[in-house]
Amino acid sequence: MLSSPALSRLRQAMMAGAMLATPFALAAPAQADEGMWTFDAFPAAKMKQDYGWAPDQAWLDRVRASAVRLTGGCSASFVSAEGLILTNHHCVVECAQNLSSDKEDLVANGFTAARREDERKCPGQQAEVVTAITDVTGAVKGAIGSLAGEALVKARDAKIAEIEKAGCKDLATTRCQVVTLFGGGQYKLYTYRKYSDVRLVWAPEFQAAFFGGDPDNFNYPRYALDAAFLRAYENGKPVKVAAHLKWSPRAPQPGEATFVVGNPGSTQRLFTMSQIAFQREVSLPITNTVLSELRGRLITAMEQSPQRKREGGDSLFGFENALKVYIGRQKALNDPAFVKMLADNEATLKAKVAGNAAIGDPWSQVSEAVAAYRNIYPAYRLTQPMGDLYGYAETLVKAAIEKAKPNGERLPGYTDSALPLLEKQVLDAKPIYPWLEQLEMEWSLSKAREYLGADDPDTRLLLGKESPEDLSARLVTGTKLGDPAVRKALWEGGAAAIAASTDPMIVYARSLEPRQRELQKAVDSQYQGPLAAAGAKLADARFAAYGATLYPDATFTLRISYGKVAGWKERGADVAPVTTMGGAFDRATGAQPFLLAKQFTDHAAQIDKATPFDFVTTNDIIGGNSGSPVVDKNGAVIGAAFDGNIHSLGGNYGYQGDVNRTVVVSTAAVQQALEKIYPAPALVRELASN
Amino acid sequence: MLSSPALSRLRQAMMAGAMLATPFALAAPAQADEGMWTFDAFPAAKMKQDYGWAPDQAWLDRVRASAVRLTGGCSASFVSAEGLILTNHHCVVECAQNLSSDKEDLVANGFTAARREDERKCPGQQAEVVTAITDVTGAVKGAIGSLAGEALVKARDAKIAEIEKAGCKDLATTRCQVVTLFGGGQYKLYTYRKYSDVRLVWAPEFQAAFFGGDPDNFNYPRYALDAAFLRAYENGKPVKVAAHLKWSPRAPQPGEATFVVGNPGSTQRLFTMSQIAFQREVSLPITNTVLSELRGRLITAMEQSPQRKREGGDSLFGFENALKVYIGRQKALNDPAFVKMLADNEATLKAKVAGNAAIGDPWSQVSEAVAAYRNIYPAYRLTQPMGDLYGYAETLVKAAIEKAKPNGERLPGYTDSALPLLEKQVLDAKPIYPWLEQLEMEWSLSKAREYLGADDPDTRLLLGKESPEDLSARLVTGTKLGDPAVRKALWEGGAAAIAASTDPMIVYARSLEPRQRELQKAVDSQYQGPLAAAGAKLADARFAAYGATLYPDATFTLRISYGKVAGWKERGADVAPVTTMGGAFDRATGAQPFLLAKQFTDHAAQIDKATPFDFVTTNDIIGGNSGSPVVDKNGAVIGAAFDGNIHSLGGNYGYQGDVNRTVVVSTAAVQQALEKIYPAPALVRELASN
Repeated sequence: MLSSPALSRLRQAMMAGAMLATPFALAAPAQADEGMWTFDAFPAAKMKQDYGWAPDQAWLDRVRASAVRLTGGCSASFVSAEGLILTNHHCVVECAQNLSSDKEDLVANGFTAARREDERKCPGQQAEVVTAITDVTGAVKGAIGSLAGEALVKARDAKIAEIEKAGCKDLATTRCQVVTLFGGGQYKLYTYRKYSDVRLVWAPEFQAAFFGGDPDNFNYPRYALDAAFLRAYENGKPVKVAAHLKWSPRAPQPGEATFVVGNPGSTQRLFTMSQIAFQREVSLPITNTVLSELRGRLITAMEQSPQRKREGGDSLFGFENALKVYIGRQKALNDPAFVKMLADNEATLKAKVAGNAAIGDPWSQVSEAVAAYRNIYPAYRLTQPMGDLYGYAETLVKAAIEKAKPNGERLPGYTDSALPLLEKQVLDAKPIYPWLEQLEMEWSLSKAREYLGADDPDTRLLLGKESPEDLSARLVTGTKLGDPAVRKALWEGGAAAIAASTDPMIVYARSLEPRQRELQKAVDSQYQGPLAAAGAKLADARFAAYGATLYPDATFTLRISYGKVAGWKERGADVAPVTTMGGAFDRATGAQPFLLAKQFTDHAAQIDKATPFDFVTTNDIIGGNSGSPVVDKNGAVIGAAFDGNIHSLGGNYGYQGDVNRTVVVSTAAVQQALEKIYPAPALVRELASN
Repeated sequence: MLSSPALSRLRQAMMAGAMLATPFALAAPAQADEGMWTFDAFPAAKMKQDYGWAPDQAWLDRVRASAVRLTGGCSASFVSAEGLILTNHHCVVECAQNLSSDKEDLVANGFTAARREDERKCPGQQAEVVTAITDVTGAVKGAIGSLAGEALVKARDAKIAEIEKAGCKDLATTRCQVVTLFGGGQYKLYTYRKYSDVRLVWAPEFQAAFFGGDPDNFNYPRYALDAAFLRAYENGKPVKVAAHLKWSPRAPQPGEATFVVGNPGSTQRLFTMSQIAFQREVSLPITNTVLSELRGRLITAMEQSPQRKREGGDSLFGFENALKVYIGRQKALNDPAFVKMLADNEATLKAKVAGNAAIGDPWSQVSEAVAAYRNIYPAYRLTQPMGDLYGYAETLVKAAIEKAKPNGERLPGYTDSALPLLEKQVLDAKPIYPWLEQLEMEWSLSKAREYLGADDPDTRLLLGKESPEDLSARLVTGTKLGDPAVRKALWEGGAAAIAASTDPMIVYARSLEPRQRELQKAVDSQYQGPLAAAGAKLADARFAAYGATLYPDATFTLRISYGKVAGWKERGADVAPVTTMGGAFDRATGAQPFLLAKQFTDHAAQIDKATPFDFVTTNDIIGGNSGSPVVDKNGAVIGAAFDGNIHSLGGNYGYQGDVNRTVVVSTAAVQQALEKIYPAPALVRELASN
């Protein structure tokens, strides 16, 4: 599946080489259906040239107003006037898991709220709709001036905090975020209407949503009902939304134009070759090795009991999904032809701006920053133990320090504009599984020791004289942070409460905090600062070379991609673009993960086997786009994007139009499910009433 | 630890890109203490120039006659006239594990045979001493003639089978092996005196032998008592050996000359850059990913009970050890400076022989073979399920087919000269742990599906409609191959017995055999054959460029390396070459893996803390050298090599004299242990009587 930033702590570690690097430049001119376009720069002329048609501003405005971002790391859309949200099942599975128990398994059995009052609140979830985009480039660039290194980072972040605070007065209903586009070429203030009460309405069985499991993930043909509905609430009532997409449960037509509207999380298409080398030589090999071990640990742990199988399910999915992404990236970067393409692009750009004194040589500046980062990286990455409980502790400790400072001096995640969502994530109640906490923490500490070395000062800081096994057992067993009331007291008690706490996890997080801060400072001064300065120059270079019709790297902000329903050639054979629901019955083997969902088996006679199930399009998307509506020319939704094919994994670095495909679950299949497999008559009526 | 071929099935899979490629050329002239020299080409002049002294032929002959190869994948030496063998603890830990039960744990508690009759036979173990080396290059090259591809491989293997059969008439006491050196530049017949009855005499506690565990493995300073004693028997009596090394439990002196005499398993120093690229881009990323998952699965499984912790111990050690090796190799090949050194060496050699028509362009031939191998590799590697039970089945099925053929037409592992050891390995009784079998098989089948894809014909062949979990459970539960009597009946019953068997594991192995044979044929014809032809030309090129003073890549045959006791500079700081036993007490934290062994704690007052413990030398060794005697100028043994430092891992591709170090346990420490920690007075007397 398109990986989701929901796995935030894992991602932080895994992506330390990638996410941290602000995407900072412009691609070469977009080819074919390439591009994750911002709404204020949709390439209508180019699309019209290729497709004979392009949307007008009214079309774009309406679609934009219907698009929803889920803070768990997914995309979605309003599909009724009463706040009904279409997204992927894998975007709600964490919610379903958090609402489950040994007595009631919403993941395995699915969930249908027969009445509004049965809809169930998702812990930590928030839905957001963009209401305005304001250019604040001048203000931020002005604050940066000619500063460099850590000073640049501080000045930039302070100005961003100020703009965000000024932009959103009502933090209960709005959220402001300044987004860095083109690596500092542009800064834009995104204003969101936010809905902090999001409830689960309908979800199929996990086995239907994820039929084919990890083996089929990022592959196609597919037979996955990866769809679900949520609803936005406010003041205990469904939200009346200003705009929504029309529900169109029809068959997708090969060749027809499709738009994907959503929030691609992150791409590295504009990385310089030194950044690419860092990923290939340093970060991806570590990631794939350590994450594979975690996967192995969890697989065996889950085999110990049905309870653990249930409790670990969402985590295993997340780790395996991430691993498939990173393995795909490593493969792409180990493909000499692919890397040559990237190198050629860089060489072309360099040649085009050679002699332009205003641009200079930002490539060398990036190389130097990467060289410095290679030294800091192991410690920076590995002094971050894993697990929700440790995550709570770290956040509480840092929040206590940061909240005491003026807004402009805080770490980015702790500014006034960021605090409401952080608070919600820390305080919302959700189940904690101590065995899983211990497994993750033990694993992460043992990997830190392995990669840093047993005698490294950071290893000693992390472990003292304890083993990873003993330390994680002691902390997980001893902490009370699984109790939301305990977290609330510490959150509200601030620095005094944190200082007075004897909770072993808080004590531990306190002991790591100064070193983490020191490492962040080193990264800011030696890596992020120089990257930001070089990034602006690289953006200038690309604009000078290619003009303004370029799209920025993905930033988990709203984008629109255009393309069409189309298969591709795989080793000489045509892959058909659309599967049918009957295909799922043909593919079923009776064994996991190719076991048909129970309700599919039970309703086999009722299901119209000719119904389109999943389909592929040429749209250019990436992780974070999960749940994005796939919209036709009429602005109606005909599916929800949930995956890419295997060739999409290299898409992090470059789009290959001949083989890169988006995988979509059709509204036609969802309609069949709502009518015949998981009957939800109220929902069918609501969708039809639009 | 220096990895050992004992992990033979795992190695087969992991090394499919490396071991299969016959090492086939000559290094550039050896620098400093570089070189794993054959005994018939010791560079005495060069050593004399560097050290002012070099051994004479009598010295070399006596040392050679004392050197022992253990077929489990280690090296060793005779240290008494009565067949006493010094090796590493990690070379006997599989034996100790096989001799253990829940009631008696020889791994955890160590083992001391108070009397000869208490010495205990190691399943599957065989000791071998080289008695003759005969050049058969003319005969083999003559048989090859101008053949190519699969025909070349068949003709070569037939001639080798013939030579080996003719060389050893008494298969009960001798073994003949033709070794390919310089990739076909030379073929030599090694004749061994073999001892099939090898017994465990003395072993310390695992925690003493492997103090520091995986974190300290391949690191230094070290405090590991990685030593053990075996004894060779014949006709139920200790063997009176013709030669042995003098036991010298003295302190190693910094700067003194040292020789390591043993059997380095495999190096790839002569790979062309296309072979290096294959390892970096294809085989190592897969290996490190899948092996990490296996590691994770096993770690969690062993945490389930003390019994599993004991039963899985040796396997976990083996997997973690192998993983550390492969991660080290990947790191070396992701170091641009290291790879540039390899590329420069190749460019220099090409330039030196440019225009030599007799040599032509073997580099391009290798590139083409590697390109073909890239296509075959995934299927070739992944159609080999893991686990001892499947391994028995595969061997039994293949042996039944091969034994029915004339000797010259069989697969290499099934010729008359190879069968006795194979038979011993299949029929010797040893414990089987079903949970571990199932874990390995399930893992390997699920990885096959992951890398080949769920719809691949080979995946379908491997799984049918079953899941990896169900299939492995069914086979492991249903098979009777854990019983040596059942294996014996099938071994002796031959093709008829195999055809009639309904044992599910035999049925399964039968179903895979034709495809495995087909893939082997493809590898021979498209990869091994072309490599062998190109290899001879590359050898010619190196001889033409550098003359004859070169050493071949390692082949798990007897070599000698010279060097000296010396530390190195690590990030600017000197690493002292010798540790003391008192250092172990300083390093102990009280938590695993830095927990002092119980007998160390109990005998703390008696131990002379100033006794040298471990030390490092500049000798050039690699996996397979484990247990090699470290010999001084007088031909006395002063230690047993058991590891390399972290810089030694790149040694697979090239020796870096400034930082690559061999790690040795001193005879002084072993003497302390025999006298004061694990008292073995008879052994002390036997060693002193030499």
